[in-house]
Amino acid sequence: MTTGATNQEDALLTEQVGPVRRLIMNRPKSRNALSEEMIAALSAALDEADSDTQTRVIVLAANGPVYSAGHDLKELNSHRNDADKGEAFFSRIFTDCSALMQKIQTVSKIVIAEIQGTATAAGCQLVASCDLAITVNEADFGTPGINIGLFCTGPGVALTRSVPRKQAMELLVTGEMIDAHTAKAYGIVNRVVPKDYLRIVVDKYAIEIAGKSAEALTFGKQAVYRQDEMPLADAYTLATDVMTNNLLADDAIEGVNAFIEKRKPDWPSLK
Amino acid sequence: MTTGATNQEDALLTEQVGPVRRLIMNRPKSRNALSEEMIAALSAALDEADSDTQTRVIVLAANGPVYSAGHDLKELNSHRNDADKGEAFFSRIFTDCSALMQKIQTVSKIVIAEIQGTATAAGCQLVASCDLAITVNEADFGTPGINIGLFCTGPGVALTRSVPRKQAMELLVTGEMIDAHTAKAYGIVNRVVPKDYLRIVVDKYAIEIAGKSAEALTFGKQAVYRQDEMPLADAYTLATDVMTNNLLADDAIEGVNAFIEKRKPDWPSLK
Amino acid sequence: MTTGATNQEDALLTEQVGPVRRLIMNRPKSRNALSEEMIAALSAALDEADSDTQTRVIVLAANGPVYSAGHDLKELNSHRNDADKGEAFFSRIFTDCSALMQKIQTVSKIVIAEIQGTATAAGCQLVASCDLAITVNEADFGTPGINIGLFCTGPGVALTRSVPRKQAMELLVTGEMIDAHTAKAYGIVNRVVPKDYLRIVVDKYAIEIAGKSAEALTFGKQAVYRQDEMPLADAYTLATDVMTNNLLADDAIEGVNAFIEKRKPDWPSLK
Repeated sequence: MTTGATNQEDALLTEQVGPVRRLIMNRPKSRNALSEEMIAALSAALDEADSDTQTRVIVLAANGPVYSAGHDLKELNSHRNDADKGEAFFSRIFTDCSALMQKIQTVSKIVIAEIQGTATAAGCQLVASCDLAITVNEADFGTPGINIGLFCTGPGVALTRSVPRKQAMELLVTGEMIDAHTAKAYGIVNRVVPKDYLRIVVDKYAIEIAGKSAEALTFGKQAVYRQDEMPLADAYTLATDVMTNNLLADDAIEGVNAFIEKRKPDWPSLK
Repeated sequence: MTTGATNQEDALLTEQVGPVRRLIMNRPKSRNALSEEMIAALSAALDEADSDTQTRVIVLAANGPVYSAGHDLKELNSHRNDADKGEAFFSRIFTDCSALMQKIQTVSKIVIAEIQGTATAAGCQLVASCDLAITVNEADFGTPGINIGLFCTGPGVALTRSVPRKQAMELLVTGEMIDAHTAKAYGIVNRVVPKDYLRIVVDKYAIEIAGKSAEALTFGKQAVYRQDEMPLADAYTLATDVMTNNLLADDAIEGVNAFIEKRKPDWPSLK
Repeated sequence: MTTGATNQEDALLTEQVGPVRRLIMNRPKSRNALSEEMIAALSAALDEADSDTQTRVIVLAANGPVYSAGHDLKELNSHRNDADKGEAFFSRIFTDCSALMQKIQTVSKIVIAEIQGTATAAGCQLVASCDLAITVNEADFGTPGINIGLFCTGPGVALTRSVPRKQAMELLVTGEMIDAHTAKAYGIVNRVVPKDYLRIVVDKYAIEIAGKSAEALTFGKQAVYRQDEMPLADAYTLATDVMTNNLLADDAIEGVNAFIEKRKPDWPSLK
C-alpha cells in the first residue's frame, strides 16, 4: 500500500493503492460533518484525483461510526453572530456543498461511496450523489433535517433523482432513518455487505472498473448525467455525438479489435 | 374530536382533531367520483386548510368501499348535448382536475392520502399526487380509462412521476388493476396496513408530522417538487436559496440550538 | 396464421396473426446485431405496421439464442478505412439507431418486446425503449460496451428513463450482465415467464391490447411519453388537451355509453 503524504490529523486522509484513491473523511468526533474545512478538502481532493494520472477510481470512505452527519451545525450556529446573522456564510456553505455534489458527477473518474456507518442529511446526499455506493448491514440512512427545523432541501435534490418520489418524501418529511437494505430497495445504494467485507468488496469493484478503458468511462460518465437533464431528442443528439467521438478514439479502436480477435484489450489510455 | 360544521349530505366532510384536518369524500354511491362538485369542494377545502392556523396536516380520506373512481362519467356524458358537444365542459373539468392535483403539491402543508378501497383513474392520480399515501390490504389501484376509450393521460402525468416507466405503461395500456402490495412496490403508496389500523396509522403519521416545524415543512415541501422539474444546476441554486432562508428563520434557530443543547425544540411556528 | 410475404433470408421477418404483427429479427448468426440493414428494416417495418389498418399491436421478437447484441462491430470496424476513419458512418448509424428508439415511442401502436435470450448494449436499449417487455427465465441483460472501450451512452439514455440511477450506473460502468428477474426488479421488463410460454403470454397481452380502443391508445401513448419530458404544469396542459379531444372522439362516446349501459363497447376505431 502506498499511503500519500497525508497527516493523520487532516480532515481528509488519502490512501493510494495502485489505481484506487481512497479519500477518507477523518473527523469521527464531529461525525465527519461537512464543515467548511471538509467541503473544501473533499472538493480539492476530487480535483486532484481527477487530474492524477495514476488514479483511475475514487473511493469516498470515512473513519469512525458515522459516515457523515451532514452540515456542521456548530459551525453554522457560530455565524449567527455575524452582522448579517449568518446569511452570507450559510449561502456560501450551501453553494459550496451543492458544487461538491455536482463535482462528484462531473469528474471524469468513477466515484464509489464506501459507507461504513450512519449517513444523514448532506451525508446521505453525498451517498446519493456518488456513481456507486456500497454499504454494510449496520449502516443507516436518513434526512432528519426536519427534526431541527431545517428541511433537507439540498439532500432532496439528490434523493429525488435516485429514490421513488413517495419514498423520498417520506424520508424528507418524517426525518426517520432507514436501514441499509431499505436504502438498497429505495435505490440509494447498490450493495449491502457484511462489515468485514466492505473494503474488500469496494476494492473489487474499484479494481474491476480501474481495468476498464479510462477513455470510455470519461466519455460516458459525464454524458449520462448530462443527458438525464435533457428532453429525449436532445439526449439522443448528445449521445450520438459522444458515441461517435468515443468510437473514433484509441481505446475503442483497440477494444473493438480485441473483441473481434477474441483477445483481451490493452487500453492505450491506461499505458 | 372536534367535528367541523359540515353537513352529512355534503360532498366533502371535514373532521378536525387537533392539528389534523381530515377531508372525507362523501359520495359513496357515485364512488366518490371527481365530479365538478367534488373537485370544487376538494380545491376549496385544500385552500381553507392551508390557510387555517390550527391545521398542520391534511388527510384525504373517503367514505364507502371506493376511495375514488375518477371522473364522473354520467356528468361528463350529460354535456354531450351541449352546443359544442361538451368540449368547453370537458376542457374545464380536466383543467380544474389538473389544478387540483397540482394544488396538493403547492399547498404548504403535508397531504396524506388515506385509501380505504379502490382508487381508479383520476382517483389513482389523486393518490399518486399526495405527499404520502397509506392504504389497506383490500384496496386496489388502476388506470382503466382505456377500457372505456378514454386513455388515462392525466393520471399518467402523476404516475410517470412516481412509478417506473414500464410498470406505468402497463397500468395505462392494459387498464388492469393491481393490489395494494404491488402498488407499494411500484411507488404509488408508502404503506399497506390491516384495515382496522388504517386510521390509526395515518393519524400516527399525521400527528408525528404535525409536531415538526411547520416553517421548515413549508420551505421544503414546495421546493422539493419545484426543483424536481429543473435541471440539476438550477435545482441546486433553488435549494441553496431555500436552505439559506430556512436556516435564517425562527424555527431553525430554535431547532439547531435545541439539538446542540440536547433538548426538545419548542417551535415558534407552532405557537 | 397469415404470414406476410417475407423471405426467410430477410434480416427481419414479419408474421401477422389477426391484429398482431410480429417483427422477428432474423440474423441469429450475427446475434441480431443492429447493423445498418437491421436498423433500416426495423424502422421501415415500424412505419409500415403503424400505417397498416389491420395491425393493432406490434411485437418485436428475435430468432436464435440472442435477442440482440447491439451494434454490429464488424460493420462499424469496416468503416475505419474510410477517408474520415469512419466518422460519417458512425455518426449516421448512431443517429439512425437513436431515431429508431424514438420511433418506437412515437408510433401510435403499442410495441411489445418479446425477449427470448440475451439483450446487450443497443439490444438492451431496444428492450428499454419498447412500451412493454416480456422475457424468459433464461434471458440476461446488460450494457457491456465499456468492456470494448465504447461506453453505452446511447443505451444509457433509455436506461436512465426506466431504471433507478444507481442501478443504471452499475450496469453501465461495470458492464456486468443481470438475469431476467433482476431486470424486472430494475424496471427493464414487465414480466418473466417460462420459456415455453413466452409467445403465449406475449400474445395474451397483444390480443388484449388489440381489443382496446385504437383511438384512445393513439391519444394516450404518444402523450404519455411527450408529457414525461415536460415540467409538471406543461405536462398537465398537454394532458388536458389530449383528454378533451379523446373524450370528444367516437370511441370514447361509445365507451362511456357502453360503461353506463353496462355492456361491452363496440369500438368505431376497430371497425
